[in-house]
Amino acid sequence: MLLVQKYGGTSVGTLERIEVVAQRVKKTKDEGNDVVVVVSAMSGETNKLIDYAHHFSKNPRKRELDMLLSAGERVTSSLLSIALNELGCEAIAFSGRQAGMHTDSFHTKAKIESINPKLIKEAISQGKVVVVAGFQGINEKDEVTTLGRGGSDLSAVALAGALKADLCEIFTDVDGVYTTDPRIEPKARKLDKVTYDEMLELASLGAKVLQNRSVELAKKLNINLVTRSSFNNHEGTLITGEKKMESAIISGIALDRNQAIVSVRNVDDKPGVAAKIFEVLSKEEINVDMIIQNIGSDGVANIGFTVPENELDRALEALKELDSSFVIDSNKEVVKVSIVGIGMKSNSGIASKAFSVMSENGINIQMISTSEIRISVIVNEKYGELAVRALHEAYELDK
Amino acid sequence: MLLVQKYGGTSVGTLERIEVVAQRVKKTKDEGNDVVVVVSAMSGETNKLIDYAHHFSKNPRKRELDMLLSAGERVTSSLLSIALNELGCEAIAFSGRQAGMHTDSFHTKAKIESINPKLIKEAISQGKVVVVAGFQGINEKDEVTTLGRGGSDLSAVALAGALKADLCEIFTDVDGVYTTDPRIEPKARKLDKVTYDEMLELASLGAKVLQNRSVELAKKLNINLVTRSSFNNHEGTLITGEKKMESAIISGIALDRNQAIVSVRNVDDKPGVAAKIFEVLSKEEINVDMIIQNIGSDGVANIGFTVPENELDRALEALKELDSSFVIDSNKEVVKVSIVGIGMKSNSGIASKAFSVMSENGINIQMISTSEIRISVIVNEKYGELAVRALHEAYELDK
Repeated sequence: MLLVQKYGGTSVGTLERIEVVAQRVKKTKDEGNDVVVVVSAMSGETNKLIDYAHHFSKNPRKRELDMLLSAGERVTSSLLSIALNELGCEAIAFSGRQAGMHTDSFHTKAKIESINPKLIKEAISQGKVVVVAGFQGINEKDEVTTLGRGGSDLSAVALAGALKADLCEIFTDVDGVYTTDPRIEPKARKLDKVTYDEMLELASLGAKVLQNRSVELAKKLNINLVTRSSFNNHEGTLITGEKKMESAIISGIALDRNQAIVSVRNVDDKPGVAAKIFEVLSKEEINVDMIIQNIGSDGVANIGFTVPENELDRALEALKELDSSFVIDSNKEVVKVSIVGIGMKSNSGIASKAFSVMSENGINIQMISTSEIRISVIVNEKYGELAVRALHEAYELDK
Repeated sequence: MLLVQKYGGTSVGTLERIEVVAQRVKKTKDEGNDVVVVVSAMSGETNKLIDYAHHFSKNPRKRELDMLLSAGERVTSSLLSIALNELGCEAIAFSGRQAGMHTDSFHTKAKIESINPKLIKEAISQGKVVVVAGFQGINEKDEVTTLGRGGSDLSAVALAGALKADLCEIFTDVDGVYTTDPRIEPKARKLDKVTYDEMLELASLGAKVLQNRSVELAKKLNINLVTRSSFNNHEGTLITGEKKMESAIISGIALDRNQAIVSVRNVDDKPGVAAKIFEVLSKEEINVDMIIQNIGSDGVANIGFTVPENELDRALEALKELDSSFVIDSNKEVVKVSIVGIGMKSNSGIASKAFSVMSENGINIQMISTSEIRISVIVNEKYGELAVRALHEAYELDK
């Protein structure tokens, strides 16, 4: 098998941890696999470098910031290679450039454009483990770029695609994807398998195992992803294409606390008025999620929508541009609870069960939105954890 | 003027120091100069990274060690560029590769083969200050190499040559080159000017302002070098070609404590015997400096020579290979005192003055060697500082 293994910041957070990772990589190689390793910076390093840059400038030049930040992953890849060689496991360290990672020129949030894995393939054919500095590439001017948050995961998935790897393993400090947050529901169970689409819904809803960009790319490239812990030998969670028919209807319950409701009342029910509200918000790059519009009999409408709580202040500021006759309210004391499962597509009654569970527990639903594989409800934040536990039990996720 | 300025580890040792350097660079640019800056890693960083590597291996793979170590200078060059941009001084950071620094493939001690300063020239023509990560280059396989000790100085001198710069300023934490070590002779005076050859003699004799490799390269490329402090605004010392006739006869007195004498007695006075001694030492890469041979009337010779004190144990070990009838002694309690000056060439009486000064002070000379611009004597270490002070006064170096 050809494996791409990615080790995140906490997995390589100390010299002792790098030694542990080296042993794991060697073991994988000794079992007869070809291995390409992608590493992050040692945990804390990237933040330290960002702090350094901010010592000089609130808004450091992004080209230089990328060159600065790329140093962290280069250090880890060199050290891991040195550790592997010492264990008698031939290894070679590659920068993003040497790994053939070509990106566009949007420094600090570059997109991968193409990968030329010539040097990696050469090294693999020589029996070497290749250790790639994640998170970084070069643009057409041969300047260092970085891929933004979760960039090393993205490097790993993209390399797995370019190399037609059999598997891409993402090592972190958690065992995999859970039916819900174990800190809320101790009976939460690790999932053996989820689909890309389920993972996308779960990730965007607060199960922070993998960034959406990486899952989207894995889906696009049809790469089997495994997320697992580098701190033990437990099997992780496989993230893959469509599951078999017999799989569970519901995979997990997610809780997203970063939610706020904005309601705009006294809006004239005329074409274009609602559009204007969302235009103002979009100009400020504020992510509007659920939207509800009620039209009253008196010809005025009330529009309610949710935004991330940490974008609320900016949203309210932006809305000041609007007609001053609007009455604008907001409420931070809400959370979003979501039920995610590929099986929903072919099963009716999922939503009605959710609503009766909520009602039995006296939880008032303030807003609802659904996708093909997800039902989300906005509830008062004090009921958030109760809702999660009740739904987890109702759908028998602990079994 | 086109200036290359190199700032060493202590000059960029903290974020505050980098800020000071940024202001100095900006001032130089604002005075109408084009400026290329070469930086070292922040002091302590390179040693930290070496310690990291040694955590995993006594003898880390050199290719990977180079990639690891090169991170330090990349960080400094990025940070200094960010600081300059914030001051309104347009700056761009370049890695060794981007600076066009091509080397051979001897990792950790690569030699510069050629420089292609295309990107640097472009940036200069756009009015930018270029900040180059020193100490590093790439080999023909596009792999990162480092230049070994003093490598950033070498980067600066080589770039000054490739760019035909008017001046190469080497900033450190000392004010320049002194007539002797001010800790030994408080009347030591900073020299305004020395020749390359004088500097080479002084540097190799313990005035550790500049590595010999850099001075040799500056001489070869005919680059005017200035060594000065980044901690004040004092003028430094200019290191240049032949001085005018009217310049001082003697430039400085150097003291080298890293000396030991080895004497081999009872050596048959036959051809090839002495050669064998030095062959054995050269095989072990031990630097033999002065050599004295006395032939006795009884047909046996005594051979004495000096080696660096820190190579003495290896030398004695190597000499065990020789004929066991040899009697081998050694003495670590010696130092080398040297008088250096380009004016010696055209002035007689320099040596005789030295010998009478030594005699007046009751200092016994154990060995002597001379070059065109240097006289060195080996004396008991307890007289070393006295000899320096007496010679400094005799040649009126404080005037």
